Amino acid sequence: MTAPTHPPVRPISAEERAARAATVFDHLPPGTDAAVLFDDQFIQYYAAFAFHATERPIALILLPGGERHLFVPRLEREHAQSFAQAEQVVDYPEYPGDTHPMQRLADHLNSLGLGRARIGVDHDGYPPVMGYSGPPVSEVLPDAVLLRVSPQLDAQMALKSPAELDLIRESVRWGDHAHRLLQQYTQVGASETDVEGQATREATAAMVAAIGEQRRTPNRWLSGAVALYRGQIGAASALPHAMTSGVRFQAGDTLVTGAGAGVGGYISELERTMFMGEPSAEQRRFFGHMLNLQDIAFEALRPGATCASVDVAVQAYVDREGLRAHWRHHVGHGLGQRIHESPFLDRGDPRVLESGMVLSVEPGLYVPGLGGFRHSDTILITNSGMEILTLYPRALEDLIIG
Amino acid sequence: MTAPTHPPVRPISAEERAARAATVFDHLPPGTDAAVLFDDQFIQYYAAFAFHATERPIALILLPGGERHLFVPRLEREHAQSFAQAEQVVDYPEYPGDTHPMQRLADHLNSLGLGRARIGVDHDGYPPVMGYSGPPVSEVLPDAVLLRVSPQLDAQMALKSPAELDLIRESVRWGDHAHRLLQQYTQVGASETDVEGQATREATAAMVAAIGEQRRTPNRWLSGAVALYRGQIGAASALPHAMTSGVRFQAGDTLVTGAGAGVGGYISELERTMFMGEPSAEQRRFFGHMLNLQDIAFEALRPGATCASVDVAVQAYVDREGLRAHWRHHVGHGLGQRIHESPFLDRGDPRVLESGMVLSVEPGLYVPGLGGFRHSDTILITNSGMEILTLYPRALEDLIIG
Repeated sequence: MTAPTHPPVRPISAEERAARAATVFDHLPPGTDAAVLFDDQFIQYYAAFAFHATERPIALILLPGGERHLFVPRLEREHAQSFAQAEQVVDYPEYPGDTHPMQRLADHLNSLGLGRARIGVDHDGYPPVMGYSGPPVSEVLPDAVLLRVSPQLDAQMALKSPAELDLIRESVRWGDHAHRLLQQYTQVGASETDVEGQATREATAAMVAAIGEQRRTPNRWLSGAVALYRGQIGAASALPHAMTSGVRFQAGDTLVTGAGAGVGGYISELERTMFMGEPSAEQRRFFGHMLNLQDIAFEALRPGATCASVDVAVQAYVDREGLRAHWRHHVGHGLGQRIHESPFLDRGDPRVLESGMVLSVEPGLYVPGLGGFRHSDTILITNSGMEILTLYPRALEDLIIG
Repeated sequence: MTAPTHPPVRPISAEERAARAATVFDHLPPGTDAAVLFDDQFIQYYAAFAFHATERPIALILLPGGERHLFVPRLEREHAQSFAQAEQVVDYPEYPGDTHPMQRLADHLNSLGLGRARIGVDHDGYPPVMGYSGPPVSEVLPDAVLLRVSPQLDAQMALKSPAELDLIRESVRWGDHAHRLLQQYTQVGASETDVEGQATREATAAMVAAIGEQRRTPNRWLSGAVALYRGQIGAASALPHAMTSGVRFQAGDTLVTGAGAGVGGYISELERTMFMGEPSAEQRRFFGHMLNLQDIAFEALRPGATCASVDVAVQAYVDREGLRAHWRHHVGHGLGQRIHESPFLDRGDPRVLESGMVLSVEPGLYVPGLGGFRHSDTILITNSGMEILTLYPRALEDLIIG
C-alpha cells in the first residue's frame, strides 16, 4: 500500500488563533464585556492549549480586543507558559485547596473590573468531572449578567479557514490510507482487534514518517491515523454506536467501518459499509437505498439551504420507500476540531449552510439481524454547492472482501 | 516476562448495581424525590450502560425504591435494551429534532409526577459537548426544586465493595505486567512511541488471553493493559501533565511512567520514577525526598483521619526540607471507575477517610531542567490503616535502566 504524498503540513498560526479571539465578540450578543470558557475544546480553539481535563478547573477569559487570560492550576503553569497562546497565564495553587479555585477565578475577574459585567459563558461553572464540585459562576459573581454563548462560539468554529481546510484535507488523506489497510487486512477468521491494530499502527507510522508527530496539537478524539470497526460487524453493525467486542470476521458479515486521522488538531470522517464475500439480495437492496440517501443529501447540500432541508429531503425518500423502521439518526454533523460539531443535518436545525462549513454526510439504515448500512463522507460547502473531500471508493463492487 | 496468574474475573453483578440505585437515596438530602443524572460515569455506575457521549443527551432517572429509567436517543434504543440495567428505556427521535430532547425529558418527568418534585441532579442540564445546546432542567421543569448532588453520589462511589476491589486488584496485576514490559523495552535510542506501543500491545494480548475481552464493561480512560511515558522523559518530565511528544530515550534521562488496566470497568494507577543509567547526586537526592514524601503519606493514611491531614503532613516535610519551589499538586485522589475520583488528598478536602476507599498516593517534586520525581501507588483504606495494592518495586536500585 503506497502512503499518500502531500504538501507540507502547516499548523494553525499564532496570528490566526489570535484573530479568532479578537473577532469572537462579533459573534457574541452586543454589549458582551468578556467571555469565560471552561470547555477544553474552546480553550484549544482560541488559545492552542491542549490539556487533560481533570478535577482542577481550567478557564479561558477572552477580553474585547482579543486579550486572553488562561486560568490554570499551579500544576499546569509551565505547561501553559510553554505551549498556550495567551497574553496572561494566571494560576491557583490546587483544587480544592485553601481557597476554592472558583473563588480565585472570581477574584481575578473582579480585578479586571468584571464583577458587574455582561459575561458570555459556555457553561455556568466548571462541570462536575472526576469528582470536581464547586459553585457556578453565577454564585461567585452574583452581580454579573451571564449569557450562554456556546451556540455563538460554535457558529464561529463552524466556518473553516483555508489553513483549517488544509489540515482537514491532510487528515482525509491519512484516514483514507488507514482505511485501505483495514480493508486489505480484513479476512474471514481474522480478529477485529488484530486487523484494527495492524492498520492503525502501520498508517500511523507512515503518517509520522511523512508529516511528523502531531502530538503538540493533539485532537481529543483521534491520535494518529486510525481505522476501526468498533464492533460493527455482522448483526452487531445494526447498532449504530456499538461498543467494540473483539469478534472475528465471518463470511456473510455486513461491516461498518470508521477511519480518520488527527492532523494539527483537526480530523475528518470516513465510514464505509463493506461485505465479507458476495452480498445477498437483501444486503444489496439496503446498500442501494443507503447510496440513494447519500446522493439525495449531496444534491441538497449548498450554501443558502437550511440544515433541516437536507434531512427532510432524505427522510422523504425513507418514507417513500417504506424504510422508516430502519431509520435511527439524522443525516450528518459539522466536524473539524471536534469529532461532532454543530450545525447538524437534522430536521430540527434551522441554521443556514454557508461556504466554508465542513460536515459529515452519513444517512444510515439499520436492519436487525442483517446489519447496518452507512457510508460517511466528509464534505465542504463551497460557494456554488459542495465538494466531497473524502477520497475512498463508495460503490458496492469496491467494498466486497474476498 | 511471565504474565500474572489470577482468579476468574467476575463483573459487577446486576444485583449489586441495582442495590446501588436502591440505596442512593440514603446518600441524598432527605425529601429528595428523584435523581436525574447526565454524567456518563454515573450512568455506567448505576445502570451498567457505557456509551459515547455526543450531542444527543442521555439521562438516567433514579426513583425511590431503585427503579431506573434510561432516557436515550432512538439511535441507542437497541443498544440500551441489550446492555443497560434499567427497568425502563425511554427514547426520543433525535437531537435537535422536532421537539428538543430536554422538553421530552421534562415530559417524561412530568408523566412520573415529578413536575414539582425535589430532584437531585449531577448537573443542571446536559453539558454543551460536541455542539449540543439546550435549556437547563431548571428551565424545562420550572416548578421543581433542583439539588446539586454530585458530592453525595461521589461519596457513594468512593466506598468500594468486595467485587469492586477484586476488579481493582486484577487491574493492578495487569498494570504491573505492562509496566514490567515497559521497563524491559526501554533503552537508550529507542522511541517512546515504539516502547509504549510494544509494552501495551503485549500486555493487552496477554490480559485478553487470560481473562477475556473487557470491552463490554469498558472504562473511559483505560482500555487493555497500558504502560506509557506521556512525554515525561528527561527535562520534559518536570511538566506533571506533559502531553507526549514522541522523543527518544537518552542517557541521563529522568523518566516518569504511568500504567494501569481496564478490568470490568475498573482501573488502578501505577507510576514510577526511573533513570536512564546511573543517576546523578541531584537525581538521587530528589528521588530520596520523593520516597520520604510517599512514606509520610502512607503513615498518615488511616480510617478516621481527614484527607487534608495527609496533605498537610506531607507538605510539612516539603517546607522543612526547603522543597516548596518543587511542589505542584496535592498528594493523591480517589479512583476506581473514574481515573480521578473524590475525595482528594488535599489540604482543602475535609472529608474523613473510611475503610473501603481506594486512593492514589503520588506526591511529586518537579525540577526544571532535571525532571519530575513521582511514584504513584494505589492503596486501600482498611479497618486498621491502609494496604498498598500496587505490586511494583519502588526502590531506586530497581528502577535504573541499563
